[in-house]
Amino acid sequence: MISVQEGADGDGGPRSSWVAHRPREGRYAGHTATSLIEVAAHLFTERGYEATSMADLSRAAGIAKSSIYHHVPGKEALLRGALEPAIEGLFGILSESPAQDGAPVERLRHIVRRQVEVLTTELPYVTSLLRLRGNTETECWALERRKVFDRRIAALVREAMDAGEIVDDIDAALAARLLSGAVNSLIEWYRPDRATPAELVAVVERMAFEGLRENPA
Amino acid sequence: MISVQEGADGDGGPRSSWVAHRPREGRYAGHTATSLIEVAAHLFTERGYEATSMADLSRAAGIAKSSIYHHVPGKEALLRGALEPAIEGLFGILSESPAQDGAPVERLRHIVRRQVEVLTTELPYVTSLLRLRGNTETECWALERRKVFDRRIAALVREAMDAGEIVDDIDAALAARLLSGAVNSLIEWYRPDRATPAELVAVVERMAFEGLRENPA
Repeated sequence: MISVQEGADGDGGPRSSWVAHRPREGRYAGHTATSLIEVAAHLFTERGYEATSMADLSRAAGIAKSSIYHHVPGKEALLRGALEPAIEGLFGILSESPAQDGAPVERLRHIVRRQVEVLTTELPYVTSLLRLRGNTETECWALERRKVFDRRIAALVREAMDAGEIVDDIDAALAARLLSGAVNSLIEWYRPDRATPAELVAVVERMAFEGLRENPA
Repeated sequence: MISVQEGADGDGGPRSSWVAHRPREGRYAGHTATSLIEVAAHLFTERGYEATSMADLSRAAGIAKSSIYHHVPGKEALLRGALEPAIEGLFGILSESPAQDGAPVERLRHIVRRQVEVLTTELPYVTSLLRLRGNTETECWALERRKVFDRRIAALVREAMDAGEIVDDIDAALAARLLSGAVNSLIEWYRPDRATPAELVAVVERMAFEGLRENPA
């Protein structure tokens, strides 16, 4: 996967105008599809996909619009390029062996931990994925993949519930959605300068599985 | 507060094109500032504030642009009108007596419960509030008010931690942000036809305070 830590580590987080702050170094003249996707992912995150024009992309990348078309067929291809690493990252978690073997609740914990890690290292890409509204074919495809992922989580929550590892007096589908929602909310408020990924993992896992309430002695 | 259940109860939830599906009844000719704010809140939720033009608003409301200006000075006033009920709703919770008296963790539970209720009944307005990027004066004001609210929650989490009611091996500020994030995520996935507000409250409260894990007997 493409690393975008340079942007994510900036002082203002993904909402800031990192592109404007970056020096227009010589290497910007020589863009690749990958580097254009990186620029596009940040702009889509910052302004939204609809509101980002090819002219904006051209300005941010420091190359002519015609040069962009030399690398990619258009804006939607840049969106697809930005989304694929995020989706691959998510589905990659499900294939890891701790997500496949063992007690259902432990597999779920592993997935939650790894989701937090993927979210924090792939912030701009995942942000693009999670803020989608679904107006283009690519957005519909990405939303559909995300739904498939969420259904896998819901199935695992039910499995853990059937195994008596998760409380059974709440609705499994709702619990799964809330769990995903809580994890996905990180993109709205997590900034790398506020906490390390490990601290974040600890808080998420604690709240989701044991709860914030101190057990009465 | 203005009820917008009519829109939120639609089959597709807040992302659907409810405006286009609504019949253009005679009452649309006689708009008020309040009814225009209702139309605007839905459009802002669906397309984003930036991407919504006065022409879009005019089409959705079924009246001329000049007629809109008769009721409100412009798009930003509609945004402010859409945000104020959501912000008032949130701060109103903090003034309720169960949010002010009793053990800190019980006050926190009350606030979380009521936040879920406000979110589910005021969905489109709150969605507008939570999806803001902060490019206009009104957006900055709303984001600032939201930060003030989140700081009040963080202070209460710390108070509950000091009282030994909340586990103290995690960071209070992170826990508070995750709690707000989990609650706010409802706007992304909650649909009134999937669960009642009461079921939703039960799941959120359970996960946040006791956790999903079944305690070993």
